[in-house]
Amino acid sequence: MAHSSASPGALLHHVRTGRARSRAELVALTGAARNTVSGRVDQLIAANLLAEVGRGWSTGGRPPTILEFNSGAGCVLAVDLGVTSVDVAVTDLSARVRATLGHPIDISDGPGPVLAEVDRLCRAALAEAGLGPDDVRAVGVGVPGPVEFSTGRPSHPPIMPGWHDHPIPDAFAAYDCPVFVDNDVNVMALGEMGVGGSDQDVLVVKVGTGIGCGVVVEGRVYRGAQGSAGDIGHIHVPVADGRTVLCRCGNVNCLEALAGGASLLRDALAAGMAVSTTRDVVELARHGDGPALELVRGTGRTIGTVLAALVNFFNPHRIVVTGGVAQAGLPLLAGIREAVYGRSMPLAARTLDISVSQAPEMSGRVGAALMAIEGWLDEDSVRDVLDAATS
Amino acid sequence: MAHSSASPGALLHHVRTGRARSRAELVALTGAARNTVSGRVDQLIAANLLAEVGRGWSTGGRPPTILEFNSGAGCVLAVDLGVTSVDVAVTDLSARVRATLGHPIDISDGPGPVLAEVDRLCRAALAEAGLGPDDVRAVGVGVPGPVEFSTGRPSHPPIMPGWHDHPIPDAFAAYDCPVFVDNDVNVMALGEMGVGGSDQDVLVVKVGTGIGCGVVVEGRVYRGAQGSAGDIGHIHVPVADGRTVLCRCGNVNCLEALAGGASLLRDALAAGMAVSTTRDVVELARHGDGPALELVRGTGRTIGTVLAALVNFFNPHRIVVTGGVAQAGLPLLAGIREAVYGRSMPLAARTLDISVSQAPEMSGRVGAALMAIEGWLDEDSVRDVLDAATS
Repeated sequence: MAHSSASPGALLHHVRTGRARSRAELVALTGAARNTVSGRVDQLIAANLLAEVGRGWSTGGRPPTILEFNSGAGCVLAVDLGVTSVDVAVTDLSARVRATLGHPIDISDGPGPVLAEVDRLCRAALAEAGLGPDDVRAVGVGVPGPVEFSTGRPSHPPIMPGWHDHPIPDAFAAYDCPVFVDNDVNVMALGEMGVGGSDQDVLVVKVGTGIGCGVVVEGRVYRGAQGSAGDIGHIHVPVADGRTVLCRCGNVNCLEALAGGASLLRDALAAGMAVSTTRDVVELARHGDGPALELVRGTGRTIGTVLAALVNFFNPHRIVVTGGVAQAGLPLLAGIREAVYGRSMPLAARTLDISVSQAPEMSGRVGAALMAIEGWLDEDSVRDVLDAATS
Repeated sequence: MAHSSASPGALLHHVRTGRARSRAELVALTGAARNTVSGRVDQLIAANLLAEVGRGWSTGGRPPTILEFNSGAGCVLAVDLGVTSVDVAVTDLSARVRATLGHPIDISDGPGPVLAEVDRLCRAALAEAGLGPDDVRAVGVGVPGPVEFSTGRPSHPPIMPGWHDHPIPDAFAAYDCPVFVDNDVNVMALGEMGVGGSDQDVLVVKVGTGIGCGVVVEGRVYRGAQGSAGDIGHIHVPVADGRTVLCRCGNVNCLEALAGGASLLRDALAAGMAVSTTRDVVELARHGDGPALELVRGTGRTIGTVLAALVNFFNPHRIVVTGGVAQAGLPLLAGIREAVYGRSMPLAARTLDISVSQAPEMSGRVGAALMAIEGWLDEDSVRDVLDAATS
């Protein structure tokens, strides 16, 4: 068996993700010397990152001490910034939500007013959780557009006018901690992978105002050459009846123009349905309204024609559908499955699992929290915490 | 800067790929102790895997000894098995071809007769290179169908009747060395990456009898959940004029049915051209024949419509087109570029490099040799060689 690293950060990771629960299990997993592991575990306990929580069972000799990640050793701020709303959560270091607050916004008001509202919500959520700015270890922010990950600046975001190159991390200077910013789809993909992640190849498809895809290769977000991997919303979709629909990108018949949230609303209005938002159409479908069901299922079929090609190419273990329109649930899934299973290669589709997110409205916040926690817990941060604890 | 591993296999890899050329550069690259590196280099020299080839320049003090990978310390057999022909090469341990031989075959004759022919060609190529069975360190085989990589057995290959589950490595038992078998497209992708590889995200598209794609993520072949990633030949392609073309898979209007080698020949015959093989059409296009140029360019456009979607999704650094039809060169490339640049997102296409292989007829053999060499040089093999040299 290949052994894993035995650095302090790696040991912490093994306990935090449940891969090891005692010093003995850490020794077995890493192949490192018992003394080395024990010394580092003691350091992590002194720094309040690990805790001893009692004794386990033993088949002879002294029973082992059970180790647990101390997820209460601080909190993170998770910000899910959308086109029309922002949701903020305070979570512990295992991404468990302690308080959450949301508010409608208009992203096109620009960074000034929107980030002021984010700041207000963060302070209120911290107060609601009974915590203060000093408890915040890291901030994670998901935004609806492309981001230069290393600087946290949006890069020519098409639906975020006024945000290009704005240094989003500066808005959180009061917390004196690292701030991580990524596009909402990559963040949602982390949220769907959950604590501990997965080593699978997964597509997380967000169907909201826009359509995007988080691409996960062996459990890690895949970004591509310019960081634009997963940008499936502007893939050209053939339309049998010769109809052309103009997309906001300037091309016609992009996936997003034919199957995004705005298109669903447009088609519902054209059919004479009494709705005023995409959410109304989704709610009608959830309650079994016939015409709404048929529209949502058609949206699923259109998305499925694109996913069928991607399944052949990428051969994922599973596809998770999330975002506002995913709250429609089964009718959307039925349309997607119909197109994917009908057009994909048998081998690639044989064991493919296609599901809707268990909590599409939460995956942005949970993902932003996980991005913040994992960023904070990387090697350098853990080393800093250990240095501070032992000096 | 992050340091790399300093295991004997890693040191060998650094020298072999040109990342380091002296003990001092290995120390700088790995961050390991000078004594550790020097001791391991001496072991690798004793085992005949590294050689000292003279002294470099110095800005003061004793000039460093230049290290070189001893690519003459054995040879590998590279087998490129196609539907209608097999090519075998004997290469040194840097994939330089020492001798190569090819012969027409019919893959549907089944493993018995085909592998007997492969065996005959291997013996003849070894003799031509002045080498014997004892010089062979590893064998690499590319086959035109899906393979279970760990066992070297084809898995329900659609165009290799009689080959399902056949243990291909057994055919090379006489060489008493490891045998690696993979599908031809993954093998060609290795060949296009070349010695030393690359850390880029690349698509290697093979356009031959069939159409397939080697998917390279950060320099490594990406296989997907069931190993079928890159199987783009059966992606459904919309046809504007309502034409339906039956594919050998049973569906209609698959990419392969509309733009594979057989489709090119069929369309040329329908246009009344005096050709009898796909190669004839490709040769006519290479020599500037108008109708052949137009057919090849149209094939490129059809392939490009599928690649445009994959460029948005995968955001590769580059695309390399290889296989028999790629020998047509520019007209194929022009059609592909027209469709990809016309339909991909500007960001993903901005710096995208699309090219045809420099030597499409060789990438299968070079890739099979690299697969064999890299398989042989993995940690375990290097350890075995060192153990044998010091015992």
